[in-house]
Amino acid sequence: MTTKEIALTGRSILAGVSVAGTGATVHGADPATDRALEPGYTLIDEAQLRIATAAAEEAYASFSRMEPGAHAAFLERIADNIDAVGDELVTRAMAETGLSEARLTGERGRTTGQLRLFARVVQQGDHRGVRIDPALPGRTPAPRADIRQRQLALGPVAVFGASNFPLAFSTAGGDTASALAAGCPVVFKAHNAHPGTSEIVGHAIADAVHEAGLHPGVFSLVYGQGSRIGQALAADPVIQAIGFTGSRGAGQALVATAAARPVPIPVYAEMSSINPVFLFDGALQGDVDALAEAFVGSVTGSSGQLCTAPGLVFVPADTGGDGFATAVERALAKASGQTMLTAAIADSWVAGVDTLGAQEGVDLVARGRAGATQNAPAPAVFETDVSTFLTNDTLHEEIFGAASMLIRYSSPEELVGAASRLEGQLTATLHLTDHDHATVALLLPVLERKVGRILANGWPTGVEVGHAMVHGGPFPATSASRTTSVGTLAIERFLRPVAYQDIPDDLLPQPLRENNPWHLNRRLDGRLEPAGNDS
Amino acid sequence: MTTKEIALTGRSILAGVSVAGTGATVHGADPATDRALEPGYTLIDEAQLRIATAAAEEAYASFSRMEPGAHAAFLERIADNIDAVGDELVTRAMAETGLSEARLTGERGRTTGQLRLFARVVQQGDHRGVRIDPALPGRTPAPRADIRQRQLALGPVAVFGASNFPLAFSTAGGDTASALAAGCPVVFKAHNAHPGTSEIVGHAIADAVHEAGLHPGVFSLVYGQGSRIGQALAADPVIQAIGFTGSRGAGQALVATAAARPVPIPVYAEMSSINPVFLFDGALQGDVDALAEAFVGSVTGSSGQLCTAPGLVFVPADTGGDGFATAVERALAKASGQTMLTAAIADSWVAGVDTLGAQEGVDLVARGRAGATQNAPAPAVFETDVSTFLTNDTLHEEIFGAASMLIRYSSPEELVGAASRLEGQLTATLHLTDHDHATVALLLPVLERKVGRILANGWPTGVEVGHAMVHGGPFPATSASRTTSVGTLAIERFLRPVAYQDIPDDLLPQPLRENNPWHLNRRLDGRLEPAGNDS
Repeated sequence: MTTKEIALTGRSILAGVSVAGTGATVHGADPATDRALEPGYTLIDEAQLRIATAAAEEAYASFSRMEPGAHAAFLERIADNIDAVGDELVTRAMAETGLSEARLTGERGRTTGQLRLFARVVQQGDHRGVRIDPALPGRTPAPRADIRQRQLALGPVAVFGASNFPLAFSTAGGDTASALAAGCPVVFKAHNAHPGTSEIVGHAIADAVHEAGLHPGVFSLVYGQGSRIGQALAADPVIQAIGFTGSRGAGQALVATAAARPVPIPVYAEMSSINPVFLFDGALQGDVDALAEAFVGSVTGSSGQLCTAPGLVFVPADTGGDGFATAVERALAKASGQTMLTAAIADSWVAGVDTLGAQEGVDLVARGRAGATQNAPAPAVFETDVSTFLTNDTLHEEIFGAASMLIRYSSPEELVGAASRLEGQLTATLHLTDHDHATVALLLPVLERKVGRILANGWPTGVEVGHAMVHGGPFPATSASRTTSVGTLAIERFLRPVAYQDIPDDLLPQPLRENNPWHLNRRLDGRLEPAGNDS
Repeated sequence: MTTKEIALTGRSILAGVSVAGTGATVHGADPATDRALEPGYTLIDEAQLRIATAAAEEAYASFSRMEPGAHAAFLERIADNIDAVGDELVTRAMAETGLSEARLTGERGRTTGQLRLFARVVQQGDHRGVRIDPALPGRTPAPRADIRQRQLALGPVAVFGASNFPLAFSTAGGDTASALAAGCPVVFKAHNAHPGTSEIVGHAIADAVHEAGLHPGVFSLVYGQGSRIGQALAADPVIQAIGFTGSRGAGQALVATAAARPVPIPVYAEMSSINPVFLFDGALQGDVDALAEAFVGSVTGSSGQLCTAPGLVFVPADTGGDGFATAVERALAKASGQTMLTAAIADSWVAGVDTLGAQEGVDLVARGRAGATQNAPAPAVFETDVSTFLTNDTLHEEIFGAASMLIRYSSPEELVGAASRLEGQLTATLHLTDHDHATVALLLPVLERKVGRILANGWPTGVEVGHAMVHGGPFPATSASRTTSVGTLAIERFLRPVAYQDIPDDLLPQPLRENNPWHLNRRLDGRLEPAGNDS
């Protein structure tokens, strides 16, 4: 792949215009060396933010009504522009995050892949949710009017970049992609830990907006202080929904701001999950070392900085479980720390691990080796029992990074009881064989009400982007359990239904017109009427 | 229709058991005479409430997994049981609400009709949202797991009865029907203004639960003080969603309680709407008296106590508009007041009309005659201009009852400007001819972002229950603009997606099993795969 020359500017992109902020300058830093990276990024003020939101509002009318082909081509163009940047994007992201080239190359593919997937969704059009109940003029005692329903883009959306996915949950990540696919202009607030990566991708999007001839307000990228500009963005009357991935505290602050607005708006915050894993007897009859190595790989991959990293493993209290714990010890001996995203995140992880290790009834199973770079602490796995876990809330908190805890259980009943006491989670993982189905059947109804995704004989990290994925779950995993932030269903977060009754055909929006100009599948009097456009 | 003998007990139904409350006794009252009605209803306490919620939680496991045929039969049985009550239901509802026999007979049909409609939805099964992305074991660089998604019932739901629809938005109304259809047990809090009607319908549901052999916790009916038991119900950890129709203040109180819970839950509150109507030049070229009579009919029907009653009419400031105002005067002369739901509601309406009439720049067009009964004040229509309307917030508030206001506009631009300043609404209504399409085309994009339903050349009252209806809209019309409380889409409020990854087939829930035992339409790798079960 050839690499485009990129001159980073340190500026926000306000509706297509590169603008220096009036505020302080922040620098990214290489967490492997704690060295600041150039250029500095100037932070904007509220008046500059309003340039972006006002332009987003202006862009809404035309953008939300785009014809499917042009709309899909726009999303593909963003992906093409990101690809065209070449390796400089991965290089910059590596420098800003400490993540590996392989991880970031994969993440770039996921980012462009989901843009192209949403392009197909836009082209296919089922998200428009067309329902038509035709008029029944002869019905008694009263005739029925012609009523048609479609899903309309909510309006401009604010998206907040996550620290841990500088590409796939950031500037052109899942929230941006699904909001743009829904027809919502996006004002994106960069995460200040990877400002250069954000700028590169921001230009790829802004260029696509320009090349597609769209209103420049369709996309803005802003650098600002979270507690000031982030909150101002969430409170801006133009903004109609918020997409966020990050900490429970920051997510809850956005939820509170959105609820306190004169007109409250939905917040899709993906926040906190410890992703319990359940090992059943049968699964411990097999290759326990392979199982433990895969577990340690899932805990330590990306330095454990994944929303779905397995933070708890329920392990039988018998000799089979002892064997697994010993195998984890062996696997950890081969694991070394990797650079974490920022010095602050590494410090917070160290403090969390120290706190956990100091709890009564919590023992260290093993630690790996510290990495050679800065901010690369040694991975840690602890152990406790169910009753200790249930009586100490500290053991239920997410430690963001490469740490996990084995919880030894004595019976299926104890396991089900412990599961019922968990908070909402993104995932639950089962390791089982045919031998274990009866026990698992007891646990599944509990887990279904706690999590967004249940998986068997794998590990929760590595979230597939498809049509059936749910990356969501009850609070505190997310602030909106009825949604997902990964996969094509994510588009529904940015749409709402509007009904049209007896509106003359030429005044109807295109999706609802009688001759179905966009060839959409429609629900006619409740029956699906395929348009034959699925491919 | 034969009529069942009904002995009202004055008691709550807690999971199938008739229980006297430990608290005060309240009586319904005949608003036509202000006479108290027997029996008194004893209000429950928090411990009694917990009997209902605990039973609902117990009922969830089996109820949420019901096979579609039995589930649909249960909903139909509720409708049959309501029909079997006979005319005593309408008689009691008339006594408690002052609404007419014709209106209540129609409302009963709507209530049973929507239960039967949801029975068909349950049988058809698209609300289960089955998506399957099959495994791709040979994919590179990494294989894809088998991932399946379905929509799961949220859990027990609290439903609050509305005063103005003692049947269709009450005990077995739209919220109850859609929650039960989703597989959610319901704890229903009766509106204390029609306790007897609630009890009759409550027994019809509880009997259906018993006759279908379901867990009795599937349905409870409770009488309690709103600020105490209503709030306790919203705060109960068992409850996973709230359905409400009523005032903005009460709705907002529920929203605040739900947000302050340790685990927040969604609130579907339908609250406040003044339902603007827009008259265009062309529409005033026709039979203006017929138009005015239909308008007055929509304003005064059910004594104006409908969520969709037209509270504002934008009328041209020219002679065509003058003609409409004069026609409204003529039509109102023939309109007489009808008994309102309660003395308190009538008093509140009188105060609201007095306040409105006293506003600077607001003139009375005409009033009808007061009715012969108690609490039947004379309908009123006022008039003002756009600039007065835009500068006085009082003119934007809902007056619940038979009152409306003409707002005279001078130009399409002024009209669009005024529309853009409206709060969120359930409906917007257009009266137009072909002559007006250019002007309407300017207004429609504004209205789409303000309302749940746009209708032409009709009146917003009379909400069709179908697949395409949206009875919803941006705040303050509702607290959840992405939903509807009428029509089959309402079921989605009580469901959330859960994904299953590589789960063995015999452990999967029925909707996701490979052999598709429930014959559901499925989305396979994004493509619709009809099961041929639409009928």
